[in-house]
Amino acid sequence: MLKRFLNAPDKLVSEAIDGLLRSSQGAHLARLDAGAGINVVLQKHVPPDRVAVISGGGSGHEPAHAGFVGRGMLTAAVCGAVFASPGIDAILSAIIAVTGPAGCLLIVKNYTGDRLNFGIAAEQARALGYKVALIIVGDDIALGQNARARGIAGTILIHKIAGYHAERGASLEEVTHHAEDASRKVRSLGLALTDCNVYDGHHQDRLGPHEAELGLGVHGEAGAEKIPLASLDQLMHRVVGRLETAITPGNQIVMINMLGAVPPLEACAIAASFAKTALAERTKWVIGPAPIMTSLDMVGFSLSLLPAEEAFVEALRAPVESSFWPGIASFPPVATVPAPELTETFTSPASQNAALETRLQAGLDALISARQDLNALDGKLGDGDAGSTFADAAQIISEAFPQLPFARPDALCAALGRLLARHSGGSSGALLSIMLTAAGREPDWVPGLKRGIDAMTRYGGAQKGDRTMLDALWPAITCLEQGGSLTEMSQAARKGADATIKMKAGAGRAAYVPAEHLEDVIDPGAEAVARFLAAVAAKD
Amino acid sequence: MLKRFLNAPDKLVSEAIDGLLRSSQGAHLARLDAGAGINVVLQKHVPPDRVAVISGGGSGHEPAHAGFVGRGMLTAAVCGAVFASPGIDAILSAIIAVTGPAGCLLIVKNYTGDRLNFGIAAEQARALGYKVALIIVGDDIALGQNARARGIAGTILIHKIAGYHAERGASLEEVTHHAEDASRKVRSLGLALTDCNVYDGHHQDRLGPHEAELGLGVHGEAGAEKIPLASLDQLMHRVVGRLETAITPGNQIVMINMLGAVPPLEACAIAASFAKTALAERTKWVIGPAPIMTSLDMVGFSLSLLPAEEAFVEALRAPVESSFWPGIASFPPVATVPAPELTETFTSPASQNAALETRLQAGLDALISARQDLNALDGKLGDGDAGSTFADAAQIISEAFPQLPFARPDALCAALGRLLARHSGGSSGALLSIMLTAAGREPDWVPGLKRGIDAMTRYGGAQKGDRTMLDALWPAITCLEQGGSLTEMSQAARKGADATIKMKAGAGRAAYVPAEHLEDVIDPGAEAVARFLAAVAAKD
Repeated sequence: MLKRFLNAPDKLVSEAIDGLLRSSQGAHLARLDAGAGINVVLQKHVPPDRVAVISGGGSGHEPAHAGFVGRGMLTAAVCGAVFASPGIDAILSAIIAVTGPAGCLLIVKNYTGDRLNFGIAAEQARALGYKVALIIVGDDIALGQNARARGIAGTILIHKIAGYHAERGASLEEVTHHAEDASRKVRSLGLALTDCNVYDGHHQDRLGPHEAELGLGVHGEAGAEKIPLASLDQLMHRVVGRLETAITPGNQIVMINMLGAVPPLEACAIAASFAKTALAERTKWVIGPAPIMTSLDMVGFSLSLLPAEEAFVEALRAPVESSFWPGIASFPPVATVPAPELTETFTSPASQNAALETRLQAGLDALISARQDLNALDGKLGDGDAGSTFADAAQIISEAFPQLPFARPDALCAALGRLLARHSGGSSGALLSIMLTAAGREPDWVPGLKRGIDAMTRYGGAQKGDRTMLDALWPAITCLEQGGSLTEMSQAARKGADATIKMKAGAGRAAYVPAEHLEDVIDPGAEAVARFLAAVAAKD
Repeated sequence: MLKRFLNAPDKLVSEAIDGLLRSSQGAHLARLDAGAGINVVLQKHVPPDRVAVISGGGSGHEPAHAGFVGRGMLTAAVCGAVFASPGIDAILSAIIAVTGPAGCLLIVKNYTGDRLNFGIAAEQARALGYKVALIIVGDDIALGQNARARGIAGTILIHKIAGYHAERGASLEEVTHHAEDASRKVRSLGLALTDCNVYDGHHQDRLGPHEAELGLGVHGEAGAEKIPLASLDQLMHRVVGRLETAITPGNQIVMINMLGAVPPLEACAIAASFAKTALAERTKWVIGPAPIMTSLDMVGFSLSLLPAEEAFVEALRAPVESSFWPGIASFPPVATVPAPELTETFTSPASQNAALETRLQAGLDALISARQDLNALDGKLGDGDAGSTFADAAQIISEAFPQLPFARPDALCAALGRLLARHSGGSSGALLSIMLTAAGREPDWVPGLKRGIDAMTRYGGAQKGDRTMLDALWPAITCLEQGGSLTEMSQAARKGADATIKMKAGAGRAAYVPAEHLEDVIDPGAEAVARFLAAVAAKD
């Protein structure tokens, strides 16, 4: 079985069209209710007085062509099987279904099958009395700029330009004139890292791990040239270098097309890479990056260039009903907004409180001394760094003592929270930072710490009994709220920490450790809290 | 070197943001001009009086989150490294940059790192006097609906709903209320055929060729369950079956999300497959299919469901500045338009012309007899079927004699063109069909055939001297135009055909055959024309 989202290859195109028509991007589309093998997508409400613009070809290039059906672009798209030209009856049906007295323009990519089948259908429609014009687009420069130049993504620009003129009520002659003008001037070139899998079940990529292909073909055919794999900027340099030999001087419009399996993150990196080239300096307008004419799951991109003539820009900027058209924008430098100055760590001036300083230093010293014990505890559950995290945090706070505002609990907590946020690592550091920052919003210790522990609970996602620091912190703060002494508080914390021995882990890394490994191990975070508070209380 | 579009992994996110901002979809975006490692995308013009809606997380999920920045959705997105939570300073900078007196809402996906870092930043912003609300989204049902439920694509629906209420001027409390309401109700589940390549250079897919993964994670982590590969409809059945156990009764909104490397053709097939499920019957609105929250190059999809409550629908339908938002549409059956009746093969009534019938029959008989000779000629250049193509076409025409309108050249040519279009194969059949159909548009033989040969030249792309049928047809028609007899015409055709021996191939399959193979071989198409015309003329 093919590892693809697929029922049967011969049903794929028809099913996909059904999906498109029921998607949020297909509400304006209908399909011809014709026999099997005829897959024609058209506007639900074809305007009777406009030139119809029809395109199509093999499937596998989505959103081309059906995705570009809509007011202002295509009137209908004729979809063949994957990479196969649609049949004559399908094309003729499409022409008859959408062509009124204003006539129709067929936009055909330069492949023998398409040229012949669209050609026959055009001749037969003319024989039936329809006004039919046909243009053949060969924008690909990979094989040289001659009669054999293939039609690739640049064709979509012709759809947009023809569709614009048709929508504004131009005659068939005018629409054809504008489409031909653009068709003569558009140039494209693609580059791929892989070929595409055509649902044949025994696919082998013809490109080796260190090869790329310049001048890709969109039907699985070999590219014009194998080149060595290189960095994105180097690959882009080659594509742009070749295109520069084929375009006119002066300002350009670029369309950046993705081939079907390029992650959107890399698509944006491709656009950024283009922006670094010399050609970008005379590029005034950009379309994409976006999947426009794909080739199944090929990892590749193509660039299409059109001179930035005012008439083209106007046509490309006009609104269109298809939401697959990625729009066009001017191509200015990256816009930036000044970053705010982040508040310094110490917002309040340093101040003294000798008793508090002594207690805190005792607690911090206890954490610094507990480094190895706590690492050993953590080593039974995780990566054995809990002791280091607490000891490092304690060290940082110790060193900051001269700058800390000890006279005000809220200012002190806020300063400690910011200090840990900037300089402490791991989840424990983050959770303590949250606790202290939240505590800093109350002027007094007990309500402040209560608020801090609440915040830690909310952000950390652990509950009491989940085998975390909270199992020592909650008993401690509850004791203080009930008027307990510091010694009673520290005893409550110790009792809470010891109780974690029998707890199942409900949060943190220990939640992923089998329960039997947790037996008789105190949670290292709870142990750290208990030791810290014991040292703080011992100075009573 | 990694086979990806990439310069260096540590520059990818920043480069991609530059690319996004210079793309046709990013003209309304700016980035914070902050130090390395701070990647914040925000609206160029943040409205000063609205609640700011901020989201973010690791990169690798594009277009989420930066792509959804825009009026009506996110005010800013904070982008971490690939699959890593953004730093606290980045989040705090974003908050300060876009938050005015109305405050801000942080929408955070339920991962420990995001929860903690956004939590700290929120607390620190509050300490600085900002009004900050924060909600945590856990829409993924793969690991059960509990505190550990991860935030996946459904989060984007919360962005849209919050952004709508912010845009219409709601208070922070109202925006948060609506976002929380939707967050409590949204459910998602994903399925993947591959995992994703995290740029580590020694990637091995953890899924075998016959395995898929139900309950995918979007950070390269293992999915909840390995399941056997199956057809798309069967896989969809499993996803929908699991989702049905987790959603409320009643009408639904579905969002169909692609994971980053699904070809658009298959994305549409996925939508069609969903449409076949029982759940589709109570699905009233659809969003996508589209890449919304991807996971680099993972081949997978996810479905997100939200009850079709009027308030949600209103919020989701509102316009938005981001063009990555794929819109929402009602989910009706596929719209169809009746197909036109194709004209029957014979539009004109049968009629007689004894002399013409005799001549034509002689020509057709000559082609039928030439089957093996022409196949042998073609065998030296191609696949040896040219004789069969001509003979079969001649046979079809012979059998249609009783129905043909021999009394009118134009009607006869049109009928023959249609006959060949429907029943003849290969490029030769198509080209002859084009010639005859075009010829049928003139009342008289000579101008008709001239027009036909012109059409064949245009569509076929070959010129005189390119070693094709045209090298016999052009001398023949030129002779007739100059008043030559049928015998002279047939002699001209023979001379033209013989001259192909020395020609290089300029079109057709022979163009791909090395020149030395062509020596002393007459083009089989030209030979067919010469034999046909010789037989026609011999009845003089």
